[in-house]
Amino acid sequence: MENKQISERVIERLPKYYRYLKDLSSSQIERVSSKTISTALNITASQVRQDLMHFGGFGQTGIGYDVEFLKSAMQEILGLNKRHTAIVIGGGRIGQALISYKGFADENVFVTAVFDVETEHLKTLSGVSVLNVSELENYLSLNKTDIAIISVQKEYAEQMAKRVISLGVKSIWNFAPIDLNFGDGVVCENINMSESLMRLIYKSSR
Amino acid sequence: MENKQISERVIERLPKYYRYLKDLSSSQIERVSSKTISTALNITASQVRQDLMHFGGFGQTGIGYDVEFLKSAMQEILGLNKRHTAIVIGGGRIGQALISYKGFADENVFVTAVFDVETEHLKTLSGVSVLNVSELENYLSLNKTDIAIISVQKEYAEQMAKRVISLGVKSIWNFAPIDLNFGDGVVCENINMSESLMRLIYKSSR
Repeated sequence: MENKQISERVIERLPKYYRYLKDLSSSQIERVSSKTISTALNITASQVRQDLMHFGGFGQTGIGYDVEFLKSAMQEILGLNKRHTAIVIGGGRIGQALISYKGFADENVFVTAVFDVETEHLKTLSGVSVLNVSELENYLSLNKTDIAIISVQKEYAEQMAKRVISLGVKSIWNFAPIDLNFGDGVVCENINMSESLMRLIYKSSR
Repeated sequence: MENKQISERVIERLPKYYRYLKDLSSSQIERVSSKTISTALNITASQVRQDLMHFGGFGQTGIGYDVEFLKSAMQEILGLNKRHTAIVIGGGRIGQALISYKGFADENVFVTAVFDVETEHLKTLSGVSVLNVSELENYLSLNKTDIAIISVQKEYAEQMAKRVISLGVKSIWNFAPIDLNFGDGVVCENINMSESLMRLIYKSSR
């Protein structure tokens, strides 16, 4: 299947399609129409057809798309077939919630360690190494790590991100209330809760 | 100051401006140029000037914008001068992290209660009532609540949201891995962690 450049907008929608197709697959549904996808995801049917053409999912009039084929195609495009390791920087409430986040396994992501300046309160986490942040360099030199999840205070977020990047980490998932952006092949997703909450309050005041 | 309709795009940027102006204000900085804002927030200077015109913040060439004036104007537009009460539905790890989320007070939001089907593990949260989800109707009939924060499993998210909406809640902050949308004056912000993670992995695979 041709691997085309996919626009930012389509990338936004890709995870929605994938999750929906996974649900259909679990329910043993074999085919789905663009209309059904459209209704379920609140995206126009023509946009659905256009997007799915990118993934080689040429639907057939009357019988729709093959769920397994499309799901596998997206899984590969999304990079979910590759196992990714992740570390959590910052073991506060948010960090702890992230360590036990059930969605990681679904995306072939595995948290291997959590780092903090104070680690006593984190000792009982099974399967995840609890380490002092001073051991970061040593850990990363021994353990190839794909993703660093930043859940420290705003003041330390950038410095911690730069630290892990200098040690070879290429993906940053940032939960600190500050926008991080990097060049040179490092990708970053910012989950900005305070901005989301502000938008919620703003919209409700209209 | 004229209260114009502000486009979706500007709404996206509004929280970033506000947070930045708050930081400047804390540092006792009185004036700021569009160029400085531009560099700090990675938005073009002309876009900054255009956006700020919406908020009545007419900068003066050579001396820039008045930080306090702009900050106050945005605070009002964002609805942050009004106190908002919130309840958390779902006391799992994410719910617990949200209850102790420090960003609420900054936005004049106060969590008053958390609801779950099992409440023993939540008993020690100070200042926040811990209640069984069966008490939801009673609680909401006695306590005007602006925001319901949904942190339950995907399967229960929509039903819980509809339940609180039927009891008068107008804003939903949704952390469950499913997109929720409502009409009739109910606003919703979806924090979709699994989609964000998928985008991160996708971008890193390119």
